[in-house]
Amino acid sequence: MLKETRVATLGLGRLGYYHTKNLHEKVRGAKLVSVVDPFGDQAEKVAAELGVESWSKDPDDVFQDPNIDAVVIVTPTSTHGEMIKKAAKHGKHFFVEKPLTQSLEEADEVIQVINENNVICQVGFMRRFDPAYYDAKKRIEAGDIGKPVYFKGITRDFTCPPEEFIKNSGGIFLDCSIHDYDIARYLMGAEITSVSAHGTVVRHPFMSKYNDVDQGMTYIEFDSGAAGDVEASRNSRHGYDIRAEIIGTEGSLFVGTFGNKNTTLLNAKGSNYEIIPDFQTRFDDAYLLELEEFIKCVQENKEPRVTALDSKINMKIALAATKSFLNGGEKIVLETAKVTN
Amino acid sequence: MLKETRVATLGLGRLGYYHTKNLHEKVRGAKLVSVVDPFGDQAEKVAAELGVESWSKDPDDVFQDPNIDAVVIVTPTSTHGEMIKKAAKHGKHFFVEKPLTQSLEEADEVIQVINENNVICQVGFMRRFDPAYYDAKKRIEAGDIGKPVYFKGITRDFTCPPEEFIKNSGGIFLDCSIHDYDIARYLMGAEITSVSAHGTVVRHPFMSKYNDVDQGMTYIEFDSGAAGDVEASRNSRHGYDIRAEIIGTEGSLFVGTFGNKNTTLLNAKGSNYEIIPDFQTRFDDAYLLELEEFIKCVQENKEPRVTALDSKINMKIALAATKSFLNGGEKIVLETAKVTN
Amino acid sequence: MLKETRVATLGLGRLGYYHTKNLHEKVRGAKLVSVVDPFGDQAEKVAAELGVESWSKDPDDVFQDPNIDAVVIVTPTSTHGEMIKKAAKHGKHFFVEKPLTQSLEEADEVIQVINENNVICQVGFMRRFDPAYYDAKKRIEAGDIGKPVYFKGITRDFTCPPEEFIKNSGGIFLDCSIHDYDIARYLMGAEITSVSAHGTVVRHPFMSKYNDVDQGMTYIEFDSGAAGDVEASRNSRHGYDIRAEIIGTEGSLFVGTFGNKNTTLLNAKGSNYEIIPDFQTRFDDAYLLELEEFIKCVQENKEPRVTALDSKINMKIALAATKSFLNGGEKIVLETAKVTN
Amino acid sequence: MLKETRVATLGLGRLGYYHTKNLHEKVRGAKLVSVVDPFGDQAEKVAAELGVESWSKDPDDVFQDPNIDAVVIVTPTSTHGEMIKKAAKHGKHFFVEKPLTQSLEEADEVIQVINENNVICQVGFMRRFDPAYYDAKKRIEAGDIGKPVYFKGITRDFTCPPEEFIKNSGGIFLDCSIHDYDIARYLMGAEITSVSAHGTVVRHPFMSKYNDVDQGMTYIEFDSGAAGDVEASRNSRHGYDIRAEIIGTEGSLFVGTFGNKNTTLLNAKGSNYEIIPDFQTRFDDAYLLELEEFIKCVQENKEPRVTALDSKINMKIALAATKSFLNGGEKIVLETAKVTN
Repeated sequence: MLKETRVATLGLGRLGYYHTKNLHEKVRGAKLVSVVDPFGDQAEKVAAELGVESWSKDPDDVFQDPNIDAVVIVTPTSTHGEMIKKAAKHGKHFFVEKPLTQSLEEADEVIQVINENNVICQVGFMRRFDPAYYDAKKRIEAGDIGKPVYFKGITRDFTCPPEEFIKNSGGIFLDCSIHDYDIARYLMGAEITSVSAHGTVVRHPFMSKYNDVDQGMTYIEFDSGAAGDVEASRNSRHGYDIRAEIIGTEGSLFVGTFGNKNTTLLNAKGSNYEIIPDFQTRFDDAYLLELEEFIKCVQENKEPRVTALDSKINMKIALAATKSFLNGGEKIVLETAKVTN
Repeated sequence: MLKETRVATLGLGRLGYYHTKNLHEKVRGAKLVSVVDPFGDQAEKVAAELGVESWSKDPDDVFQDPNIDAVVIVTPTSTHGEMIKKAAKHGKHFFVEKPLTQSLEEADEVIQVINENNVICQVGFMRRFDPAYYDAKKRIEAGDIGKPVYFKGITRDFTCPPEEFIKNSGGIFLDCSIHDYDIARYLMGAEITSVSAHGTVVRHPFMSKYNDVDQGMTYIEFDSGAAGDVEASRNSRHGYDIRAEIIGTEGSLFVGTFGNKNTTLLNAKGSNYEIIPDFQTRFDDAYLLELEEFIKCVQENKEPRVTALDSKINMKIALAATKSFLNGGEKIVLETAKVTN
Repeated sequence: MLKETRVATLGLGRLGYYHTKNLHEKVRGAKLVSVVDPFGDQAEKVAAELGVESWSKDPDDVFQDPNIDAVVIVTPTSTHGEMIKKAAKHGKHFFVEKPLTQSLEEADEVIQVINENNVICQVGFMRRFDPAYYDAKKRIEAGDIGKPVYFKGITRDFTCPPEEFIKNSGGIFLDCSIHDYDIARYLMGAEITSVSAHGTVVRHPFMSKYNDVDQGMTYIEFDSGAAGDVEASRNSRHGYDIRAEIIGTEGSLFVGTFGNKNTTLLNAKGSNYEIIPDFQTRFDDAYLLELEEFIKCVQENKEPRVTALDSKINMKIALAATKSFLNGGEKIVLETAKVTN
Repeated sequence: MLKETRVATLGLGRLGYYHTKNLHEKVRGAKLVSVVDPFGDQAEKVAAELGVESWSKDPDDVFQDPNIDAVVIVTPTSTHGEMIKKAAKHGKHFFVEKPLTQSLEEADEVIQVINENNVICQVGFMRRFDPAYYDAKKRIEAGDIGKPVYFKGITRDFTCPPEEFIKNSGGIFLDCSIHDYDIARYLMGAEITSVSAHGTVVRHPFMSKYNDVDQGMTYIEFDSGAAGDVEASRNSRHGYDIRAEIIGTEGSLFVGTFGNKNTTLLNAKGSNYEIIPDFQTRFDDAYLLELEEFIKCVQENKEPRVTALDSKINMKIALAATKSFLNGGEKIVLETAKVTN
C-alpha cells in the first residue's frame, strides 16, 4: 500500500465542504489533516464535526506545514492565483476548482510557477470523470463511432441562480458553457479554432443589467475539421439537464439521462419519473472520482486528466465566446490552442 | 389488379361497426356491399352513414346473395356456429371474431363444414398482425435470439369491465389470456402441452359470484421443451398494458410499449408521457392489417395466418386453464395440440 | 355524406407517386380521376396499376376538365409557379409540395392569383400533421408548459443525398431547416424576427463546390421574446433523426423518438432497437393526414393548416439564413413576418 | 461524532472480500480491525493488502477479543448457526449473509440466542437497500399508488452458475426467488399466505439431476388480499435482469432498469446500450448501504431493516415453494408468518 497523502482543504463554502467530506470519508489514500476557512468559526466547526486534527483561518498555516503533501483549493476565484502560487512554491500539489484564475495573464503566470516547482495541478472539470462522459471517451477512442464530426452539448440549470450570483458569474459562457467547451475538446480529441456566440434574455429581464443572457448558444469549429454547438440555459423547469450527442462517421453516441431513480410511477396521468434536480446529484460520482484521481496522481507522480493548460484553453474559449456574443455573434478565430502555452 | 371482393358485415355492435368502417374506408380490394344487424335501425343507419348500397336485418339475405363473396361475422359468440355453417354452405369465405364457437364440440363441427365447403376462414386473433408482435415473429424466425425457451405475457385491462360483461365473458382465462396463449404458440413455434392456472380477486369482490378473478396467472409448457407464464389483469390503473418477453438461447425480445404519443412532457414533477388507453388505440394497425390479409387470402386463395384450427386449440387451452384454476392450480396436461383436429 | 372530391395528381416522381397512392387508397372523400406526368409512359403505367380512369402527359388536360375539382402538384419546383397560376385560374383547389415557388417575387404573384380566384391552397409542410408535433401544439395551447421561451430543432438525414441532388437543393437551410423554421413558428405561436446561420463541411468535401455545408446551425429569435436553435445535418449514421425540444416557463415538451418498431432485441451486446430509416417511415401518418385535411378543406371551404403565406414566410427565413451563413454568421433582422403579405 | 465501531470480517471468499473492502474503504464509522479466513494464507494476504492490523485463521480469536464490537459473517451457510451463536454469546453484534441458517429449526435456535444476548443482527437481503426498491417503498408508503394489490418480480441471472454451485444451492426458489419473496413482503407491507410453484428445465439438462430447474415461477397470495408472481431464471442471455412491478388501486410502480451506463451508441444497426452484467454492478450501492445501516444500528442501538425473523420467514416461504414445485405445483398454505416466531 502506498503512503497516505496528507491533505488540507482551503475554503469551506458549499462546494469546499462537499469536497472536504468526500476527502475525509471516501477518498482512498487521502488523509484529511487540516481544514482552513477565514470566515467566522466555519473551520473550527467542520474540524469538530469531522474529527479533523487541525484547523486554521489562515492558509499560510497549511502552506508552511511540512507534513502536508497536498491542498484542495476551493476559495473564491479572485484568490486562486495567490493560493496556487503559494502552494506551488511550498511544494504542495494541489487540486483547484475551475476556473484556474481570473485572467489569462494570471493563468500564464501560475502555469509557469507550477512548472518551475514541479507540482501536480488538477483543475475541477469534473465532467471528464463522470462515468457516462468517460464511457463515451473510451468508446470514441475504441473507434465505435469512427471519426467524430459533430458535438452537441446541452447544459440547462434547473432554476436561475439569484441576481447576486449572476452579477459575479462572468456570464453564461464563462460560467456554464465552459464545461461543454472542455468536454467537447476532450471527447472530440481536438482543439476549438473558432467560436460564434449568440444569446437572448427569454425569461429573466434582470440579466440585461449585467450584459448577460439566460439562453446562450455557441457554434464551434475544431482543428480536426469537426464542428459543434453548445446550448446553455438558465430556464429549465424540468430539472438539471446535461446531455451531449457526438456524431461520428460510423455512428453516434448520446450521453446523459433524465431519470434520477430507477423507479417509474404509472397511473391514469401517464408514466412519470423524477428528473435529476441538481449538479450534486448528477455529478455525485464525478466529484468523488476526480479527487480519487488527484490523490492517485500525487502518489504516482502522474499528470492529471485535466491540467492547468486545459483550464487556460477553456478560459480562452469562454472569453472569446463572450466577446463574440457582445459583438452580435461575430465569428472569432482562436489560434490553435494546442501550441499555446 | 385483382377483382374486388364483395363483402358484407354481420353484426354492427362496437367492434362490428369498427370492422365495417375499416373495410369500407381503408381495406384495399374490398367493396362493402351490405351491412346486417337485427337490432332496431342500426343496419339502415350505418348503411346511410357510409353510403353502402344495401342493408338488412336478416343474415340470410346476405348468404343467399350470389353477388357477395365474403362475410365478416361479428355477431354474439352464441350465434357464431350457425353463422359459420350457413356462410360455408353458401360458399362464402368468412372472417369471424374470436372465439370461433361456444364449445369445442361446435368447433369440431364448423371445422368439418369449412373443410367440406372449401371456404377461407380467418379468426380475429389480431395480435398476430400487430407490427410489434409480427416483427418479433420475423426476428425469431431469423434466428436473432437462437431457440426460444421462455415466453412471458402480460395482458392488463385499463379498467375493469362492468359486471354485466364479466358475467358472460367466460372468465379471465377465456376472455383475456386466450390472446396470450395464441401469440405464445405463434411466437414460440410450438404447442402448449400443459397448463397450471391460478387467480385471485384482489380488487373487485363481485367477481367471486361468477367464479371469476381479476388477476389470473397461467404457467405453461410447450412441446419444444420451453415454458412460460401469462398474467391477465383487470386492475391496471396505468393504462392498457400489453407486453411480451421472449427469452432465447442467444438473446431476448421484448415486445410492446407504454407510450401513446411521441411527445414527453417534462416539468418539476418529472417526465411524463401518456399511456395507451385502450385496445383500439393499441391494436389500431392490427385490426386493419388482419382484414387486409383476409381479403388477400380470399383473392389469392391462401390460408390465413390464424385458422379455425388455431382458434380451436386456443379454446382448448383456455378451457383447461379455467379448469386448472377451479381445481386449485392443478396441472392439466393437454394432448399435443398439433395432431388434434 | 359530402360529395366526393374529384382529384388529379400532377407529377409522378417518388413523392408524387406516394401522394397518388395515398389519395387513391386511403383518403376518404377523394376520388382520383386522373394522373399526369410528361415523362415516358409513367402516367399510363400508374393509371393502369391503380385502375385510374384517365391519364395524360399534359397538365392542361386536367386544368381544362370541368369534372376535376382539385389537383395535387408534385412537379419540379421550377414549374410550381406556372402550375399554381393555371390551377387557380381554372378554379381548381390545389395542394402543392413545398416550396411554394422558386422566388419570393413569384410567391407574391401566386398569392395574388390564389386570392383573386378564391381557391384553397395547401402547402406540404407535413410536420404540422405529424401526430407527435400536433400533440405538442395542442399541449402548448392548453398551457401545459406555460409560455414557450426556447425552441430546439434537430433534422438529421440518415445518409447524404447524391451530389446531383445537393447541387439543385438550394442549400441545407432551404432544403432541411425550412421544416424547422415552419414548425418552430407553429409551435411557438410567434414569428421569427432574426436569424444567424453557421455551417461547416465536416464530412462531404464536394459540398463546398456549391457553397453548401453538411452541418448547419441557425440561431433564431421570435417576436414573442423567445429564441431557439435549429440544427440540420447530412451526417447522421444512426438513422433519420427528427426531434424538437420546447422549453416553457412551466415545463418542457420533447417531440420525436428513435424507435421504429415496438420491439427491442437484447443480448450480451446490449439492448438494441431499430432506428427510423427515412422520412417516409417517420412521417407516414403525416403524409396521409395532410391530404385528408386538404380534401376536408376543399369540401368544407376552410383555410388549411399551412397556407401559401406560411410557405412564403418560411422561404423568407430560409433565404435570410442562407445569406447569413454566406456572410460568416451575420445576424439578419427580418421585418415582422406577420404583417408581410 | 459517535465512537468508531470496531469490526472483524469472517470469511474472505468473493463476497466476503467485497464486504471487507467496503467496510475498510467506504463505511463511515466502521474500523476494520481484523480479518479471518481458515483457508491458506487468504487472511494474511487480505490484511497485508488493506493494511489491517490483525488477521487470523480462527474465528474464536475474534469472538474472544474484547476490543471487537461487531462481526460480519460471510462464511459458508452450513457454519452460520455456529458463528451466530458464538457471536451472540460473546456480545458481538453481527451482520450475516443470507440465508440466516441451514434449517428452520436452527433459525429458531439462533433467534432465541440473539434475543437472550440482546445483540443487533442484520441479514444480507440487500435489495431493501437498493435506491430503486427503497424509493418504491417510500412511494408506496406515501400512498402514490393507493393500496398495492399485485406484485410481479423478475430475477434473471445472466449466465447459469456452474453445476458445482447448483448442486449445493438449495434450488432456484431458495437461491434466487427468496430475494423476491423478501422484497415482495417489504414492498406490499404484507405477509405471504400461500405459494404455488412451478418450474421447467428449458436449457440446462444437468439441473434435473438435482431436482432443480432453470426456470421457476411462484404464484403467491398475501394476507392483505393481494397476490403476485415471481419468476426466477438461469437463462438470461441479455444480462442480469432484476425488476419488479407493483400494481396498486391508484397507480403502478415499476422498479429496475437495463441500462448500465448513461451512454447510448446509435448506428445503422440501431440504438444500443450496455446491459447490467452482474449482481455486484446492479447492487453496488445496496451492498454499501446495508453495511452503513448495520454500523448505524450498532451505534444507535436500532433494529435493522432486515431482521433474523424476516430471514426466517423468507426461508419458510422458499422451502414451501420448493415443496410445492416438487409436488407438481400444489398450493401450500402458510400460517400467517407475522405471528410466527
